[in-house]
Amino acid sequence: MNDLLHIGGVSLHNRLFTGTGKFADHKEMKKAIESSQSQVVTVALRRVDINGRDEHILNDIPEHVTLMPNTSGARTAEEAIRIARLAKASGMGNWIKIEVISDHKYLLPDNEETIKATKTLADEGFVVLPYMSPDLMAAKRMEEAGAAAIMPLGSPIGSNRGIKMKEMIRIMIDEINLPIIVDAGIGKPSEAAEAMEMGADAVLVNTAIATAENPAQMAQAFDMAVKAGRMAYLSGLGPTTEKANASSPLTGFLTT
Amino acid sequence: MNDLLHIGGVSLHNRLFTGTGKFADHKEMKKAIESSQSQVVTVALRRVDINGRDEHILNDIPEHVTLMPNTSGARTAEEAIRIARLAKASGMGNWIKIEVISDHKYLLPDNEETIKATKTLADEGFVVLPYMSPDLMAAKRMEEAGAAAIMPLGSPIGSNRGIKMKEMIRIMIDEINLPIIVDAGIGKPSEAAEAMEMGADAVLVNTAIATAENPAQMAQAFDMAVKAGRMAYLSGLGPTTEKANASSPLTGFLTT
Amino acid sequence: MNDLLHIGGVSLHNRLFTGTGKFADHKEMKKAIESSQSQVVTVALRRVDINGRDEHILNDIPEHVTLMPNTSGARTAEEAIRIARLAKASGMGNWIKIEVISDHKYLLPDNEETIKATKTLADEGFVVLPYMSPDLMAAKRMEEAGAAAIMPLGSPIGSNRGIKMKEMIRIMIDEINLPIIVDAGIGKPSEAAEAMEMGADAVLVNTAIATAENPAQMAQAFDMAVKAGRMAYLSGLGPTTEKANASSPLTGFLTT
Amino acid sequence: MNDLLHIGGVSLHNRLFTGTGKFADHKEMKKAIESSQSQVVTVALRRVDINGRDEHILNDIPEHVTLMPNTSGARTAEEAIRIARLAKASGMGNWIKIEVISDHKYLLPDNEETIKATKTLADEGFVVLPYMSPDLMAAKRMEEAGAAAIMPLGSPIGSNRGIKMKEMIRIMIDEINLPIIVDAGIGKPSEAAEAMEMGADAVLVNTAIATAENPAQMAQAFDMAVKAGRMAYLSGLGPTTEKANASSPLTGFLTT
Repeated sequence: MNDLLHIGGVSLHNRLFTGTGKFADHKEMKKAIESSQSQVVTVALRRVDINGRDEHILNDIPEHVTLMPNTSGARTAEEAIRIARLAKASGMGNWIKIEVISDHKYLLPDNEETIKATKTLADEGFVVLPYMSPDLMAAKRMEEAGAAAIMPLGSPIGSNRGIKMKEMIRIMIDEINLPIIVDAGIGKPSEAAEAMEMGADAVLVNTAIATAENPAQMAQAFDMAVKAGRMAYLSGLGPTTEKANASSPLTGFLTT
Repeated sequence: MNDLLHIGGVSLHNRLFTGTGKFADHKEMKKAIESSQSQVVTVALRRVDINGRDEHILNDIPEHVTLMPNTSGARTAEEAIRIARLAKASGMGNWIKIEVISDHKYLLPDNEETIKATKTLADEGFVVLPYMSPDLMAAKRMEEAGAAAIMPLGSPIGSNRGIKMKEMIRIMIDEINLPIIVDAGIGKPSEAAEAMEMGADAVLVNTAIATAENPAQMAQAFDMAVKAGRMAYLSGLGPTTEKANASSPLTGFLTT
Repeated sequence: MNDLLHIGGVSLHNRLFTGTGKFADHKEMKKAIESSQSQVVTVALRRVDINGRDEHILNDIPEHVTLMPNTSGARTAEEAIRIARLAKASGMGNWIKIEVISDHKYLLPDNEETIKATKTLADEGFVVLPYMSPDLMAAKRMEEAGAAAIMPLGSPIGSNRGIKMKEMIRIMIDEINLPIIVDAGIGKPSEAAEAMEMGADAVLVNTAIATAENPAQMAQAFDMAVKAGRMAYLSGLGPTTEKANASSPLTGFLTT
Repeated sequence: MNDLLHIGGVSLHNRLFTGTGKFADHKEMKKAIESSQSQVVTVALRRVDINGRDEHILNDIPEHVTLMPNTSGARTAEEAIRIARLAKASGMGNWIKIEVISDHKYLLPDNEETIKATKTLADEGFVVLPYMSPDLMAAKRMEEAGAAAIMPLGSPIGSNRGIKMKEMIRIMIDEINLPIIVDAGIGKPSEAAEAMEMGADAVLVNTAIATAENPAQMAQAFDMAVKAGRMAYLSGLGPTTEKANASSPLTGFLTT
């Protein structure tokens, strides 16, 4: 199946994006990323020692992976823009996942500031992937601002609560012309598969992998689930009915 | 991962059981079963030309597969028992999935008659897998009657409605000592994955594969989803929280 | 609205049945039952001091109420039958809610034993209301055995988890000719309203009232919710659509 | 119970707001509004013949009701502001529900434009109630802009799909200091009750009433459901448990 996802000039055959947070150590993180088969990994610039001292998280991310630095810690567009430029200047490439968060309890992104940062950074040539609170009109503005893909949250980050915002994500998939990558809240492989069956283009999973008892194995489970969900989407799901519908012939008992 | 499911003296590494109904033709069915990687396939005795004339459905089921004839068409224990014996006599082995159905609209199984047929056939040496309406006490009686596994329905057969009876299946998984195989109603790979994450031992999928636009590819999607769900179950799912929980460090903006 | 529910020769205008368990004391129970407007109240024979010593729970149940003694504590049909006869002999009337439970963890009823007790007691002239694990064929047998109404559980008793068994209850409402009274698991007035909107004939609520901070006020809330749900059912719910459907005119902006 | 909702200097004891769209005729509308007991009714300025010719919709809205004209038809903040001023100038009072919608398929509101209109109109002394796509940060901005209450949608307007955006509404109830009024999508009284149990301050229902077979009776059902949900919220809902929890004593069978 030659089913590729094109973002920012890169062609991806794997639709599971992963993150680098919450792992016990770099070794566990590395193992999980490898077994996830991810081709895109997000990393907070704060985690990167850009002066090159000490242990460097980037050393533990497989070489073939596209790095997607994120602006975690930014509370405004301005701060996000500054982090993005620093990331690029330090050689982390031109992809940037914009996270602008000033809400401390539910860590929900600020769509308005995110749109501003998207505009500025897209104009500067970044491949911009805004993380957002699912909302059709905000997503349309991000599209107009030059985003390369849209990353709506399924539920609050790190909550493992699943795709609670399904209704709006369903609508965004229907109405937005960019790739939709469900990010945050996915807690189980079945939920990742469901996102893909709905027509999402990819998912980003971090907490559910990092907080599993066996992160590397859970990463592999997510990889398979994302592939299964994508394949189901492409295979054309059968219709749902209210009543039963016999699989086996029921027309009377055998009379032999 | 050496994770085997033992039923009736057979050790299975694949936990997706499939069926033979509703396919456009035998060729499509054969292709779907092959790509599902199933090791157990159910077939209605009615579908089998036991006199050997004409095209024989059994010729199109891969050889390595354990055949699980079912008693589809039976309305009473007595009829189910008669079908089971015919199946064995015609060389289809000693596995039998008991289906006793007299409700014509929702095709819901009759637990009481099913328990009776289970007792008789288990005593005769069959490997009995009763298909049932999820109910803890009925499942306990099937266990006592000698069932080899219990097959509760997720929702009405052929409806593709998903695992609507989750609450009772969750309890049965917790309380019954036999393998639990979720059968009927599973419409999407994500639902199969979810059944496995809940701790089900296997799932049986027929309609969702046969009614897909591309049945063989959908069968492959289900195979992967079942493996993903099982692997997630074994990997220890992380906890769910009400609030957010940062994946990335948020302790203030970088000050460099 | 002259909308009456007829059971066992009694015509009820109130469709909220209540229970007597878990209240802090008899006074609180009495107040809650009164504000619930219930016309049917269930009481465990064990709670009744049939020798008339001490404080008597029956003294605190309003006089106009139809008493529905239950067989709580029974593990078999035989025990349930014995309790039922004792209840009648002690002057508690001829209604009986059959509860046969031998599962200690989830307290799920035993449908097979319940059917037996229903048959015997209905033949003896009792108005029999069997509490059951939702299952169409078992409900049909209870109907044949002479039950006056069927009481499927929404979720495990006392769990406040809501109507988790909706799929099977929906089917039972469609297929069974007796009143369906959703019993056990209803934790919120909205869930009671939903049961009524689905077409249930009544609900029984105990734990959700007794464990509220203000039981009497919660009882009133349930009364109103049940009436609201029933009235909605009778008013013909409008259709659900996938897309939006303007309530207000949207045909262009005003041009004055 | 002296439980009042204060908005814009008005104290409301009824928490069901209604609308005027989709009714067969004015007579049916009038009857439904009356039986809803609503104290706040929204009306699209487009529906009002501000030149006073012909039949006037306002004549059929009960006198004691607070009129909440809405800006339906506006695609931008500027258009909404213009409609609001026209409404006030034509004597419809100083309440205004802001609706800014440029999406034609799902009719989802534009939060950014809505925030702008809220700011301008609140500064001009309007009591501003913005209709919005549920999003915590946008709601915070509306609060800062001077909104009197926030009106998040439950699901696309007129869809009767229920409160699909529960997750975000739950968070907004927790985090926003203004009254939260769930608007759009509520299709059944049970869903209105659920919104109130979650802690919403009011709900607005139009389509579900207007498209019922008996709109006036359905309006009454919603009134009761909203009261039931509010009362349940104030009565302190009991805890939910995973296992069962006996209502009746189960400690062994009676030994008399």
